Amino acid sequence: MELHRFYSSLAIRTDRTRKIVVLLIDGLGGLSHEDYGYKTELEYANHPNLDRLASHGATGMLTPVLPGVTPGSGPAHIALFGLDPISFNIGRGVLEALGIGIVPDPADVLARGNFCTVDDTGVIIDRRAGRISTQTCEERLSLLRDIRVPECEIELHVVRDHRFVLRLKGSDLDGNIGNTDPGTVGAKPRAAAALDQRAEATAGFINAFVDQALHRLKGPSAANGLVLRGFSMLPDIPSFDELYGLRSAALAVYPMYKGLARIVGMDILNCNDLSDQLRTLDTYWNDYDYFFIHYKYTDSCGEDGEFLSKVRHIETLDSSIDSLLSLEPAVLAVTGDHSTPAALKSHSWHPVPLLLVSPTCRRDGSTAFTESVCARGGLGTLESKYLMGLLLAHALRLEKYGA
Amino acid sequence: MELHRFYSSLAIRTDRTRKIVVLLIDGLGGLSHEDYGYKTELEYANHPNLDRLASHGATGMLTPVLPGVTPGSGPAHIALFGLDPISFNIGRGVLEALGIGIVPDPADVLARGNFCTVDDTGVIIDRRAGRISTQTCEERLSLLRDIRVPECEIELHVVRDHRFVLRLKGSDLDGNIGNTDPGTVGAKPRAAAALDQRAEATAGFINAFVDQALHRLKGPSAANGLVLRGFSMLPDIPSFDELYGLRSAALAVYPMYKGLARIVGMDILNCNDLSDQLRTLDTYWNDYDYFFIHYKYTDSCGEDGEFLSKVRHIETLDSSIDSLLSLEPAVLAVTGDHSTPAALKSHSWHPVPLLLVSPTCRRDGSTAFTESVCARGGLGTLESKYLMGLLLAHALRLEKYGA
Repeated sequence: MELHRFYSSLAIRTDRTRKIVVLLIDGLGGLSHEDYGYKTELEYANHPNLDRLASHGATGMLTPVLPGVTPGSGPAHIALFGLDPISFNIGRGVLEALGIGIVPDPADVLARGNFCTVDDTGVIIDRRAGRISTQTCEERLSLLRDIRVPECEIELHVVRDHRFVLRLKGSDLDGNIGNTDPGTVGAKPRAAAALDQRAEATAGFINAFVDQALHRLKGPSAANGLVLRGFSMLPDIPSFDELYGLRSAALAVYPMYKGLARIVGMDILNCNDLSDQLRTLDTYWNDYDYFFIHYKYTDSCGEDGEFLSKVRHIETLDSSIDSLLSLEPAVLAVTGDHSTPAALKSHSWHPVPLLLVSPTCRRDGSTAFTESVCARGGLGTLESKYLMGLLLAHALRLEKYGA
Repeated sequence: MELHRFYSSLAIRTDRTRKIVVLLIDGLGGLSHEDYGYKTELEYANHPNLDRLASHGATGMLTPVLPGVTPGSGPAHIALFGLDPISFNIGRGVLEALGIGIVPDPADVLARGNFCTVDDTGVIIDRRAGRISTQTCEERLSLLRDIRVPECEIELHVVRDHRFVLRLKGSDLDGNIGNTDPGTVGAKPRAAAALDQRAEATAGFINAFVDQALHRLKGPSAANGLVLRGFSMLPDIPSFDELYGLRSAALAVYPMYKGLARIVGMDILNCNDLSDQLRTLDTYWNDYDYFFIHYKYTDSCGEDGEFLSKVRHIETLDSSIDSLLSLEPAVLAVTGDHSTPAALKSHSWHPVPLLLVSPTCRRDGSTAFTESVCARGGLGTLESKYLMGLLLAHALRLEKYGA
């Protein structure tokens, strides 16, 4: 039985008093940094509130997907939402759409599009089309919006600079299609190729669109070509409500995380920053059973290699969570979706610290919230997809399995 | 998706600079021994170099197959090579062949054969045929080599004493066949019985061979009968190169480990002893991406119940690894395939200490390489089959999963 179906089969759907809060610190996990005494960002930061929570709760480690596997944001969140991230893969096209606030229908095929510059023979000479502005991107897309392809509808959405999203709507579409992007200059864009038979019709639609688009884009503009990649469909994912009878809300600033929350059926409570998130949490406290609070800046600093900025954002978060604690959630999980060590300037495969606070936690003697403490914590190291079961259990929302 | 296929789908195949070295200390894990202050062999031994490495890296524990499961050498190695040891079972016949330097074709059926002594009625009265010499074994086998069976070719290879390997070569053979060895004296050898329909023809070939063989063996020799067991086929295993684009080499002294390395496509660099292994590593350093160094003696001492000998071999290894370290592998894993506690005189199910050293390790505060330190180490306890993913990740040979 699929994991989420198993948890679902045990779900108690009536309780509305024991609130679950997940405080998701994006890219939380770090790496020992030689410039900072071989400490990680979390070990270097001063976070007395999180440390106090650790001594009241239990700690552990989450492996986002599998040992060694560095996840993108899609799989990392999908796992935290209790779904197997390998079965429910979020492709680049889908994620790109989520990132601009579009939640695709599971029947749609999505792709990430890039304008590029091609020479007279169609060979790519600039993969970023001379770094055109977002406005130029919008103008070039507008030339393509009335292209018609039989049996499906095409939407084009600007992302930023030379990037856009292609959305195909229709019936019987299939996203198992290879990139048209050859991934390099000096080559022509490829035709969209079906990777299995069921995708052949869809590949035909895409090629029909691209042919017309290239015809219209021809000329002196730097954006006179386009490539597509990451063809994908949104997996058909049941909602938290359907699975667990959970009324759930996401408090996020960035569209992508709102989008990821939407695909498991969360309501989106728009927020501008952390203090706004905490205020909003207070406002809607009685309306939901599960709150997902997404804190982005730690990941961005990690990506930029800014160790001390990441430290500072951890400290900011720490000093701001009193109002959250005053609401007395029955279950509070503080964790990350993945590690983003400043030392690597990218997501990484390292497990992510987990702090769980609930009256039903078995205290494990942890007195700090750091990677090295969590690695020895009472919860052990578990795959992220199991967190959902722990949250439901501590909220007393899972009944006994078997007699 | 199968684990190795999943890792393979993420593999970056081009990098040739970041070397992976696995230093496999066979039977490394031990057991608290009352004669030695309830320390394990590894805890009792003096190994300053390994301890120093632990303080630069991260430690953890490997569960060879599943908790409680004692593995043979076959499954234990298969798991370390990143394959699920339950799906890819290495049968006794196959392992016995590997042990004498034969790498079977996946179409072959292998069995371990024993000469035995039978009475006039065919009942086994000595399961070891009076402990005949290897030479006598060879002489008896030579009586059987021109036995012909339709539709398949039969090879017989001496192992040692009364033991030999039977290899059937043909097409459409199937190894799902019950032992002819009744496992006891006082019973007759059984006929080879197909355990499913597809193995019926093969069982027929074997019985045809055995009938002729018994006829030829009849007489006063102690080796006047034979039994067969462990019918098995080599699973069809993709190579490291195929899966990960890894050029890999094994530096092993004993044939079985060379054979196990061969089945995942490693090149075999023959060595006579540890210092030879380390010299060979140096010689071939630029030619491979992954090196598997197999150190046998710890296991043998464990099997013999020689606690102090095992301690001494750990110390020998420790004092010899400087030349390995001077090559500065990007990723070094020091671990075992399984535990062989002197206290048990056999393989055991206990997890095996793991030490991982790489610039991308999250230091976990370990300052020694022992079972009790590793059990609290930052890598946690994971199944051996996941080690491959960790090695590839630290070698920066796995791309991000999902967008």
